[in-house]
Amino acid sequence: MKVNEYLTAARNAVSFPIEELTNFLYDGTKNTARHRWLRSLIAPEKEPILDTSDTVFLDREQRYVRNMQIIKRLLQIKKQHNLSYEDWLILLILLGEHSPILLHDSLFVGTLEGQMSKEQLDKWLPLAENYRIIGCYVQTEMGHGSNIKKLETTSTYIRESDEFELHSPTLTSMKWWPGSLARTSNYAVVMARLIIDKKDYGIHSFLVQLRGEGHKPLPGIEIGDIGPKLGYNNIDNGFLRFNKVRIPRTNMLMKFSKVSSSGIYSTPPHAKIVYNTLVGGRADIISKAAYYLAAVLTIAIRYSIIRKQGNKFSSQDEFQIIDYQFQQYKLFNGLARSYTFLFTGRFINTLYIENIAKMEKGDVSLMSELHAISSGLKALCAELVCESMEDARRCCGGSGYSSLSGIPQYATYYAQYPTSEGENIILYLQTGRYLLKSFQLVQQGKFTGGIQLSYLMDFDKILYKKFSANVKEEHILHPESQIETLRHRYIYLLSNLSSSLEKSSRIHPNNNNSNNNNNTLKEAEAKSEHMIDIINVSRAYCYFILLLNAHQGLQSVKKEHPSLYPSLRSLIDLFFINVVLSQFGEFLITGYYNSNHIDLLKNLQKGLLKKIRVDAIGLVDAWEFSDNMLNSALGRYDGNVYEEMYKRVKMDPLNLKHDKGIYVGYNEALKDIISGDYLKEIDNSERNNNNFSINKAKL
Amino acid sequence: MKVNEYLTAARNAVSFPIEELTNFLYDGTKNTARHRWLRSLIAPEKEPILDTSDTVFLDREQRYVRNMQIIKRLLQIKKQHNLSYEDWLILLILLGEHSPILLHDSLFVGTLEGQMSKEQLDKWLPLAENYRIIGCYVQTEMGHGSNIKKLETTSTYIRESDEFELHSPTLTSMKWWPGSLARTSNYAVVMARLIIDKKDYGIHSFLVQLRGEGHKPLPGIEIGDIGPKLGYNNIDNGFLRFNKVRIPRTNMLMKFSKVSSSGIYSTPPHAKIVYNTLVGGRADIISKAAYYLAAVLTIAIRYSIIRKQGNKFSSQDEFQIIDYQFQQYKLFNGLARSYTFLFTGRFINTLYIENIAKMEKGDVSLMSELHAISSGLKALCAELVCESMEDARRCCGGSGYSSLSGIPQYATYYAQYPTSEGENIILYLQTGRYLLKSFQLVQQGKFTGGIQLSYLMDFDKILYKKFSANVKEEHILHPESQIETLRHRYIYLLSNLSSSLEKSSRIHPNNNNSNNNNNTLKEAEAKSEHMIDIINVSRAYCYFILLLNAHQGLQSVKKEHPSLYPSLRSLIDLFFINVVLSQFGEFLITGYYNSNHIDLLKNLQKGLLKKIRVDAIGLVDAWEFSDNMLNSALGRYDGNVYEEMYKRVKMDPLNLKHDKGIYVGYNEALKDIISGDYLKEIDNSERNNNNFSINKAKL
Repeated sequence: MKVNEYLTAARNAVSFPIEELTNFLYDGTKNTARHRWLRSLIAPEKEPILDTSDTVFLDREQRYVRNMQIIKRLLQIKKQHNLSYEDWLILLILLGEHSPILLHDSLFVGTLEGQMSKEQLDKWLPLAENYRIIGCYVQTEMGHGSNIKKLETTSTYIRESDEFELHSPTLTSMKWWPGSLARTSNYAVVMARLIIDKKDYGIHSFLVQLRGEGHKPLPGIEIGDIGPKLGYNNIDNGFLRFNKVRIPRTNMLMKFSKVSSSGIYSTPPHAKIVYNTLVGGRADIISKAAYYLAAVLTIAIRYSIIRKQGNKFSSQDEFQIIDYQFQQYKLFNGLARSYTFLFTGRFINTLYIENIAKMEKGDVSLMSELHAISSGLKALCAELVCESMEDARRCCGGSGYSSLSGIPQYATYYAQYPTSEGENIILYLQTGRYLLKSFQLVQQGKFTGGIQLSYLMDFDKILYKKFSANVKEEHILHPESQIETLRHRYIYLLSNLSSSLEKSSRIHPNNNNSNNNNNTLKEAEAKSEHMIDIINVSRAYCYFILLLNAHQGLQSVKKEHPSLYPSLRSLIDLFFINVVLSQFGEFLITGYYNSNHIDLLKNLQKGLLKKIRVDAIGLVDAWEFSDNMLNSALGRYDGNVYEEMYKRVKMDPLNLKHDKGIYVGYNEALKDIISGDYLKEIDNSERNNNNFSINKAKL
Repeated sequence: MKVNEYLTAARNAVSFPIEELTNFLYDGTKNTARHRWLRSLIAPEKEPILDTSDTVFLDREQRYVRNMQIIKRLLQIKKQHNLSYEDWLILLILLGEHSPILLHDSLFVGTLEGQMSKEQLDKWLPLAENYRIIGCYVQTEMGHGSNIKKLETTSTYIRESDEFELHSPTLTSMKWWPGSLARTSNYAVVMARLIIDKKDYGIHSFLVQLRGEGHKPLPGIEIGDIGPKLGYNNIDNGFLRFNKVRIPRTNMLMKFSKVSSSGIYSTPPHAKIVYNTLVGGRADIISKAAYYLAAVLTIAIRYSIIRKQGNKFSSQDEFQIIDYQFQQYKLFNGLARSYTFLFTGRFINTLYIENIAKMEKGDVSLMSELHAISSGLKALCAELVCESMEDARRCCGGSGYSSLSGIPQYATYYAQYPTSEGENIILYLQTGRYLLKSFQLVQQGKFTGGIQLSYLMDFDKILYKKFSANVKEEHILHPESQIETLRHRYIYLLSNLSSSLEKSSRIHPNNNNSNNNNNTLKEAEAKSEHMIDIINVSRAYCYFILLLNAHQGLQSVKKEHPSLYPSLRSLIDLFFINVVLSQFGEFLITGYYNSNHIDLLKNLQKGLLKKIRVDAIGLVDAWEFSDNMLNSALGRYDGNVYEEMYKRVKMDPLNLKHDKGIYVGYNEALKDIISGDYLKEIDNSERNNNNFSINKAKL
């Protein structure tokens, strides 16, 4: 394999052993070996069906069929190598493009495990694990996404036959969006309002068979695809309408709430437990944010090293575009984010697992905190990944717009995350409200423990703090000082918001609701008028948590991987500086920083870019994404970009036809347009140029 | 037509006569009537082929063929109504989705007009105008986009036969990207290095016939499609390789530079003239920025009015999502931008036309200024439109991710503009360098006239200015004060940058280039280390120009459309506030504003959102985009969103098959996966769970 000379030179210059970083990323040598082994199982040289290079030319139907054929083959590999559940999920991720089957294995199986009683699991889990049933998680409706309480689908208990009757009473109640619903699944966990004797018990989960013999939808079930999307087009997001469909009572998922054979409803004290599925989805986005962003950055950084553009100062040669300061500014900002997310991903996963263990024992003490942290963090990570992917795309110039770069597929896939698994704004608000509540508690001296509250302790000390007039790098970039700086900012914003809300709910006129003029209502209205500020606090807090986790993680890097420490430290320092500089007014307005500090940070930023330039290729290579997974002509490991671009376009079906002398569009229309003969009979007297009123149509 | 009650209520509440705004947008009642009439000509009720509602289900080939068939029909309409060139271009824009023919009519015909001699025009223009030849503009190569000087394609003068020989000497010299090249065009204007007697005269334009009888590529010409892209997939962007292709000498475009029959090259003094095509492309992006952003906002604002989510404080009813402060913050920021761009679009068009008139007389005095302004403004407008389109998409929640919303198509189409017609970063740098040069001139007392320089006059007065301590709305939002504020910011940044550069080029060590150690080189290196700062100044300047033009434009609105003034003024005020608040540190650091001013602006921002809420629907409706052009189930004029979504998905070919009992993927793979029979023979003994070394493959 001939490797581009600039890439080789860049790799040779990296300041740390790249394999050590790989081991850090994959959590140890054993795990690295496992990932490599799994990657080898799906190498396209061995398994031609897994070759991704033509996928951009496939339409939705072809991509879906291809994916199902891939899964069929992978299940053989899975059995052959006796892969564990965990390995199987990794294998599915390593494909690059998600499969509907991944939704079955993670979301559907996960929901059964989380919400089914022991007896139910004994019956259903083996069927699901062996794909005798393939299922999806069906929640959102056409008319309702985030406001789960307003879902309209009903599941009414029919005492006579001991069944539930699923029904979609309106057009807007039609289930809309669930992934793998349209074609793949024959079962579904459906969220619906439980109705017993006309009483509404709220939203519960029900296992519903959707399709029977020959995959045909069962009577009363209307099912279909919701059409093409910005991305994720290999997934069969679907719609589902029930016309009085009966299921056995025992198909309600009864780990927690239950309905007995006599129609008696019971529910455990901690109904929050079912929210764990939601939190799990968010934790997953946070912990994969680093990974997906790194994939796109791998493409953009490799390409920026081989791509030349613009004359060098002193020669006829051209710059490698990675040597432009602004290119570094954008790409390394992304790199800094990706590594920062890595640490927080590990933190949130640990917390998530801890919470599950606690909940198994009936302890829900972590739940609201985990919910609050994961909400805002998911929102921020999703937002920043999208932004940095778009930056990376633009850093590839025109080539980033081409599907051959691979970036459009990653970026449009990822573009769902600011909305899915909880709409970002709603999530920010949830975190913000939690912070406000915590702040009130702390102000009232009610320290009840928990992670958030501990950072709020002594809030009044940090609130009026000014940073040392001493403007030296070692002070301003000291980890504790960085953490303190972002903590100062969020606490300042939080404290300001809290006072402002208090004032506002005191004076709120509340004219429209004179007969319902209680305090809660006033508070709610005040909050709605401070939505921008609540979101701002929430984001500031999440930045703080990201930085905190990163520096805590760096402590163990320092011990366990000292050769990696300087590089990773530079990335986190850059993350900090970019966060501050992107909104430095917030640090000036409190007097915490002065203009000298800002100038210093600007200089340090430029210095860091130069440092990171040396290691950038190692920082992406270490992930060991396969060329087949990246599916990018620009991001190849060997840097043979132009040869690959040309090779790929020759595979375009439009070009294959063209090479055979079939000029698409020519016989259909162009021929006539060029000859113009078909226009000869047209009478051209219809228009009087100055009179438009003859045909003044509506819009 | 039953219209959604919330939309009706919103329309009734608008504070100004919507039709008056329409007349303002389309520049007079006559022009409004013209647009309406043109829109009526392509109404899908009359011309079923123009119905766009199924286009999201078409693949690239089908979309291309459909587009060509549409053009074939439109040419009949064009002749029938004797449409002018201008009307024809409007008609093509009104289709919503661009046609390759639009590139022929604007870019190709425009280039011929701009660069051909009188005699050449007499011969070629009628052929082009009547589509006897269809052409494209061919500049970028695989290896070179923005650095035009480095293009590799050669056009060598062959004295013996009085011809040029076009040749692609390398893989990277292959022409790559030109729109309408792959299938539509049979001619092209090709940018290539002119070589005469082995001497390189730089880049010139040549008219080359690409295809002959039956649309077959001529000998020596390799042509094809560059494959799918993020968007713009109905356009046949192509590649083109020449293997010693001969054209007559007279096919060089010779309005300016010429090659005589004896092979003598001559060129006029002002070679910059050919840059007018580039400037024209940028001016076009700026002047259409308002339009495309408004189209997407029409969708998002209408949907936000009909969509309900989240319980109201005091009732079981839900909020219309447009009533959320943050939704307003995002959508009305877009609206403010769109209207701001409108004024600057008019300004830049006027300047562009003025420049052409001057150049006809050999006067190039406006050229560099126009080039500098249009570069940065194009970059900023493209960047902000992309951002606001993405905001709008997210404001539609999950539905914005669906192609049925229409937003993905607009957003992915528009996503090319930060790169195409000049890469944004390079454009910002061009503007920044021009500002630096102007600033030096002014500092040296060399006031040579021109628009830029006039704003730099008395720069020292505004540099140290502090805003009045008086914190009242009428002061801080006074138009002159707004303009002064953004002028202060850019001049401050410019002055800072200028000193910093001077210092840096004085002290620059320049170790690597000791034998070429001149001042220009030092300056270039200093600039490369201040790239972030140059871009920052450039953006700050462009914000100033946007605001300036908006307030100047508002003056005539005040006189000619007094009923519109308050609403439009609110939008421009919001634009100003958002610009300041997005980077308020820059106004604090100079002492221009203090924290009270920032607090005031934050309050005013919220007040403006409430005001604009009342008029939002009118501000988008006034554009009169047809439902067919928007091609959005969410953005319909009548607001019947859910019915339309359902209707459209039923047209999805995958659903049509499904309804016929053909379950795509089932027979191909799912059936086997569900039965599992095919796995029975698999030997599952291959893996030893703890030993990965057996197959430790490379990445």
